[in-house]
Amino acid sequence: MAFGEIFFAALEVAGTISFAISGAMAALEKRVDLFGVIFLGATTALAGGIIRDILVGKTPPAAFSNYRYMAIAVVTALVVFFIAWLSKEYYEHNVAVVNAVNNVFDAAGLGAFTITGAKVAMRMGYMNNGFFVVFLAMVTGIGGGVLRDLMIGEIPFVLRKRIYAVASILGGIVYYRLVYYQMEDMAAAFVGIGTVFGLRMLATVFKWNLPKAYE
Amino acid sequence: MAFGEIFFAALEVAGTISFAISGAMAALEKRVDLFGVIFLGATTALAGGIIRDILVGKTPPAAFSNYRYMAIAVVTALVVFFIAWLSKEYYEHNVAVVNAVNNVFDAAGLGAFTITGAKVAMRMGYMNNGFFVVFLAMVTGIGGGVLRDLMIGEIPFVLRKRIYAVASILGGIVYYRLVYYQMEDMAAAFVGIGTVFGLRMLATVFKWNLPKAYE
Amino acid sequence: MAFGEIFFAALEVAGTISFAISGAMAALEKRVDLFGVIFLGATTALAGGIIRDILVGKTPPAAFSNYRYMAIAVVTALVVFFIAWLSKEYYEHNVAVVNAVNNVFDAAGLGAFTITGAKVAMRMGYMNNGFFVVFLAMVTGIGGGVLRDLMIGEIPFVLRKRIYAVASILGGIVYYRLVYYQMEDMAAAFVGIGTVFGLRMLATVFKWNLPKAYE
Repeated sequence: MAFGEIFFAALEVAGTISFAISGAMAALEKRVDLFGVIFLGATTALAGGIIRDILVGKTPPAAFSNYRYMAIAVVTALVVFFIAWLSKEYYEHNVAVVNAVNNVFDAAGLGAFTITGAKVAMRMGYMNNGFFVVFLAMVTGIGGGVLRDLMIGEIPFVLRKRIYAVASILGGIVYYRLVYYQMEDMAAAFVGIGTVFGLRMLATVFKWNLPKAYE
Repeated sequence: MAFGEIFFAALEVAGTISFAISGAMAALEKRVDLFGVIFLGATTALAGGIIRDILVGKTPPAAFSNYRYMAIAVVTALVVFFIAWLSKEYYEHNVAVVNAVNNVFDAAGLGAFTITGAKVAMRMGYMNNGFFVVFLAMVTGIGGGVLRDLMIGEIPFVLRKRIYAVASILGGIVYYRLVYYQMEDMAAAFVGIGTVFGLRMLATVFKWNLPKAYE
Repeated sequence: MAFGEIFFAALEVAGTISFAISGAMAALEKRVDLFGVIFLGATTALAGGIIRDILVGKTPPAAFSNYRYMAIAVVTALVVFFIAWLSKEYYEHNVAVVNAVNNVFDAAGLGAFTITGAKVAMRMGYMNNGFFVVFLAMVTGIGGGVLRDLMIGEIPFVLRKRIYAVASILGGIVYYRLVYYQMEDMAAAFVGIGTVFGLRMLATVFKWNLPKAYE
């Protein structure tokens, strides 16, 4: 594998781990049991891709034909569970730190998932349907988080705060246009990921939010 | 296009706009951001058809191959957002009026969506599976509203109040039987839509609700 | 039909009835109307199989090509509704009893649905993908209950209490391995069902729960 591919795969792994952590931590807050923590961790990490594959008629979804990511998500959730189980104090004392660190990995993962979603759409033959390509990119990026929030009974985070779905959409558009205009795929991928990652970091640092009609 | 088709398309547009309005207004109540308003407006308008297409294996769902309705839903949600954003007072002062007006469009939309769902089921070759035809008709009609309510953390409205899903089911049955017995399609469509529309209006005026086991 | 098949079908019917009862009772608690009770009863009984079929690309889902189970679920929900409607006192006075009895049928149903899910996965050609077979077995078993809880705005029960999803997973693994190693299918099915049923009963009697990180 070329360096680019390895780096891209590394970002997908980073995203899977970070999404699984956010799912497992949200699960712990709701006092679910071990299965619940694993289930929500895996759902958060994989649901975006599963929904995307169902929308393009790719069955069974990739998550079930290649377990690498499922395994990573489950192990990650287990680690989170056991840390909290070993010491509630230690766990809760570090929630803030973990969230801060996780936010960075999450941004990288959102970028990688966004590009993966766009790649799948193009490979399935929707190269000339830019709208659908970008939509699938966004679904792959935010689907897991939306399902996580629905499962724990909260209004999806992406509908409420920060530049999240919009970062995914813009990254998807940038990637799509670059590929469309013949830029080498891996290069386009990194520009797209950089767009998502940069927007997420700026939104975090400067507390950017999309406008609300009123509070 | 014959007049009938134009009128039918007009009803679908009316339904898309009115579903998008109800989604956007529900979103505003939950204080979501601009993306949330657009996302919930589009979801409410399009999810019924998307779920229907997934159930019949029609991928990608029509909503992604023909953007007309997606565009209408997004623009509608934007309009709702900006009115609320320009003047909270003006917006809240008119919520009741909008709901009353919207209820009429919603009834027309529910009728049109119901028939579209039945049409798709028949076109996909389930002409002799009346049960499935009527089920898809209902799913197309109520799917968006159900998902809207799940997203904002409420028990789906269709499970709680008025003759809503039942109006869609009865309209679907009427349309299916008429087509089955060779009535000209467009004529059958309008009888079906009329059934849904009429039932919804009567249920609104006379505050009809389905029985509850107890309050 | 051989005795085994009849007994297996009987267990599926038992499961459908018991899942429909749990859905209808959950619906009544939320004061939904007649349609809501029927809708939630049918959803709880059928959603697991529908989600499974969507994941393997089997459209339309079996629930719409063979109505037997849909009919059983609807009639069951109607019976629950009318009992509660005839006498709230009688209904509420017996909720505890019904839940206790239903828990036994539910365990049989969870076992039967789990095996059905595994069967479908194998028949669709995933015989050598044990992970996917077991996953589909679990989805078929718990999918309905998860959707029921999401619809009534609660965190899915399977994420919170008792050995439920885990019983389904273990039963699925047992069944898969036995078939894989050439045991006669019906025999393997009953060992699998017995595993699920036994675990559920033990978990109920001894109040087994999976560990939580903390309360």
